[in-house]
Amino acid sequence: MFIPKLYRSDDYDVMKEIIKENSFALLISSVDKIRATHAMMMLNEDHPEQIYIESHISRANPQAKVLKNGDEVLCDFLGAHTYISSSWYDHVNVSTWNYEAVQIYGTVELMNNDELYNHLEKLTSIYEKPQQCPMFVKDMGKEFIEKEMKGAFGLKILPTEIHIKQKLSQNRKEADFENIISQLENSEDTNSRQIAEKMKLIKK
Amino acid sequence: MFIPKLYRSDDYDVMKEIIKENSFALLISSVDKIRATHAMMMLNEDHPEQIYIESHISRANPQAKVLKNGDEVLCDFLGAHTYISSSWYDHVNVSTWNYEAVQIYGTVELMNNDELYNHLEKLTSIYEKPQQCPMFVKDMGKEFIEKEMKGAFGLKILPTEIHIKQKLSQNRKEADFENIISQLENSEDTNSRQIAEKMKLIKK
Repeated sequence: MFIPKLYRSDDYDVMKEIIKENSFALLISSVDKIRATHAMMMLNEDHPEQIYIESHISRANPQAKVLKNGDEVLCDFLGAHTYISSSWYDHVNVSTWNYEAVQIYGTVELMNNDELYNHLEKLTSIYEKPQQCPMFVKDMGKEFIEKEMKGAFGLKILPTEIHIKQKLSQNRKEADFENIISQLENSEDTNSRQIAEKMKLIKK
Repeated sequence: MFIPKLYRSDDYDVMKEIIKENSFALLISSVDKIRATHAMMMLNEDHPEQIYIESHISRANPQAKVLKNGDEVLCDFLGAHTYISSSWYDHVNVSTWNYEAVQIYGTVELMNNDELYNHLEKLTSIYEKPQQCPMFVKDMGKEFIEKEMKGAFGLKILPTEIHIKQKLSQNRKEADFENIISQLENSEDTNSRQIAEKMKLIKK
């Protein structure tokens, strides 16, 4: 991901928020050929000196069959994004797309059984807590979850490069910037209104 | 992208809809290392015997500096997606994520100047038509657009493999399937309600 200086962030809170709000991300590898799997990802911060991404994909997935310890992968998290019409500026220009994204390059470390269990338990817990009748991993029965785990390929991604992008019209003068926000705020599209909020935040 | 048979589609209308509704997609290459750029993509169907993807990225993007004619890339289009809680089933099971996605492997063919102009004109036109005071490429002035085009790296992606995935709980029995739809329909999340609609469509 190309990030001109104006759009580059080194704010780890921004990174964490993008990852948390866009956990259904893309696991990309190029061991034998380019392969990309949409998968749930979580940031593990248990050891602040070595944060990493946790994820799992199906063992039947060809990507699981080629990924080995030490392989390089790229995790792509796309956040809110929306079209920005140049008709909202007070001068002639080209239209563009505003967005937030995080890309993490890292090396693969395969999970052992305990790590996979903990990963599935944590992940399920996050999404089940808000449910009316939550179904937690611990309630699924030992035999059932052991069978399920055999079909899951758990992996940790140890970051080697972290890229945080906030392309939010930082290159626009104040009048245009304000008009973009007001156009987006009036949109029926959730993503557009989210970008308006992000733009207001970076302005502060 | 791994697609179990149950979730595989060969319906080109489904593909076209996913591409159209999720045109801000991901261009992935592995020439020197894995690189992925979020970019606007359009399906070109002028010649039905050879459809292709049109896109452009910044010339300053390192990916533009390495991509050559004939290189293999992967275009990833993620459609609507949402969490499916196993608490909505009438039996113990694991939770999952429903989603639609299209992945197109293809070879790169760099655009010439005329192709790039037509691409930018078409792309801008799609997004500007609904604007209150549309700003079309033809209204930007020859000198201005020629300058802008110098900064754009236009490319066509000629498909070698097309993968269409609709993971929409097709593996669930009717009662669970219906309950998932009703749970999603009651969600405040646009994506969830979209998935409910897609599920109703595949049922018909």
